[in-house]
Amino acid sequence: MTNEYVPPKVWQMESENGGTWGSINRPEAGARHDQKLPAGDHPLQLYSLATPNGQKVTIMLEELLAAGVKAAEYDAHLINIGDGDQFSTGFVAVNPNSKIPALVDCSGNEAINVFESGAIVLYLAEKFGHFLPEDAAARARVMNWLFWLQGAAPYLGGGFGHFYAYAPEKFEYPINRFTMEAKRQLDLLDKQLSKNTYLGGETYSIADIVTWPWYGNLVLGKIYDAAEFLDVEQYANVLRWARMIEMRPAVQRGRIVNRTWGEEWEQLPSRHSAADIDEVLSKKPD
Amino acid sequence: MTNEYVPPKVWQMESENGGTWGSINRPEAGARHDQKLPAGDHPLQLYSLATPNGQKVTIMLEELLAAGVKAAEYDAHLINIGDGDQFSTGFVAVNPNSKIPALVDCSGNEAINVFESGAIVLYLAEKFGHFLPEDAAARARVMNWLFWLQGAAPYLGGGFGHFYAYAPEKFEYPINRFTMEAKRQLDLLDKQLSKNTYLGGETYSIADIVTWPWYGNLVLGKIYDAAEFLDVEQYANVLRWARMIEMRPAVQRGRIVNRTWGEEWEQLPSRHSAADIDEVLSKKPD
Repeated sequence: MTNEYVPPKVWQMESENGGTWGSINRPEAGARHDQKLPAGDHPLQLYSLATPNGQKVTIMLEELLAAGVKAAEYDAHLINIGDGDQFSTGFVAVNPNSKIPALVDCSGNEAINVFESGAIVLYLAEKFGHFLPEDAAARARVMNWLFWLQGAAPYLGGGFGHFYAYAPEKFEYPINRFTMEAKRQLDLLDKQLSKNTYLGGETYSIADIVTWPWYGNLVLGKIYDAAEFLDVEQYANVLRWARMIEMRPAVQRGRIVNRTWGEEWEQLPSRHSAADIDEVLSKKPD
Repeated sequence: MTNEYVPPKVWQMESENGGTWGSINRPEAGARHDQKLPAGDHPLQLYSLATPNGQKVTIMLEELLAAGVKAAEYDAHLINIGDGDQFSTGFVAVNPNSKIPALVDCSGNEAINVFESGAIVLYLAEKFGHFLPEDAAARARVMNWLFWLQGAAPYLGGGFGHFYAYAPEKFEYPINRFTMEAKRQLDLLDKQLSKNTYLGGETYSIADIVTWPWYGNLVLGKIYDAAEFLDVEQYANVLRWARMIEMRPAVQRGRIVNRTWGEEWEQLPSRHSAADIDEVLSKKPD
């Protein structure tokens, strides 16, 4: 790869950066159009899309409902990032970073805006007292992996996924760089899951709930079509864990919320009640 | 940029990925040599280096001490990542991800291992009850930005910093991609700090403590030598905030702990008492 590029003294945006999603990226933050957000009847209002970061929260909410937490009922409104819904004045008022998912908790006197998928999942775990141990040592083990995921997934999504699947050309150096890191992350998870049933120990927790949508979907071949390229069969413990979690009813339910692609039985653009999910899943062939 | 690279069906590591730090990267996790960690007398044992992620924790600890929390006394041991100290059996037993910083809290019956800089800062905030509001809405504002930083900094460090400063060649596409994102992040912070004194509102919090070492150092020209390239003068509110926080005595103290480069008065490889810091800072010219 020969290369004669010399960066300028001061960077200027010359044109769209290209590739899938390239046209929506800009070097500025903030709203681009005036539009209110819809609102449903439940205390929890979610604005999202069923990407891995979106799935974290819908799976968490479905797990809470499955655990009997009736106060976790929610409306999930579709934010179509390809159409730029995340740049509306309404969305930016909730999350100035213009990324899904974003949650508004209207259960108290003051509406509380929560953004960043990891912050939302932790907020819900603490609010309802589920999927996060109280004992200090056990809690630390879960929190370590929760934060690990939040710092690791950008290398998988913004690094590996972008350069392997979305960039306008196949650039060798970045593909090698981010593939090596993706494989190191998978090996790390594999070693952790060789000694523990779940990431944080012997109990299913928010560490699994945030990690499965990224690394579970990855080894199951559901994102980036990269299972062969990454030789995921090497990571037997990650596969065991990914398949075990995939079987959970709440995961089957949560993963289809705010989803607008795939099979007919896995597409539910917006969700306002349990029956909405039941109806879509009933279309699944036996 | 012409490009004829076709990724193989199954990725194989061909050689070192190159650039600064390239030689220590591998597609596997786990220990590479047998070595115990040192341990001091204080209940909190930190294993770190004064990179931005390391500075988060040493600044947090110095802020706690400045706030009168005597139980936050700590030993900070140097982990030289260029020498591969993070791949010792001792370090991996605390943090299997082999990244600094890592903390062992020996204050209770059971030693608690905490890793990921964001998890450590949050752990300390909750343990000692400082720099994180108790009120649910105020707490959510701080947690949103804490999690924002953990997901944003990989684009700055592993993306922009790598391709602008460390990669073996200047690759135009990744530099443009990650520069656009770095500028979007700076503009987002600038807008937030145009309406708030601190990131989470009117009170200094862990959101500022984790963000300053990355974006504060960046606009002050302390990392990547990129202030002109990014035209940081555009972001007047970020500069105001960065300079205000830089003046805090605890920041002046914390930023030099586990540091082995720069001026003589900012290098303190390991820290065992407040006097260690006093001695090094006393060398600073007036």
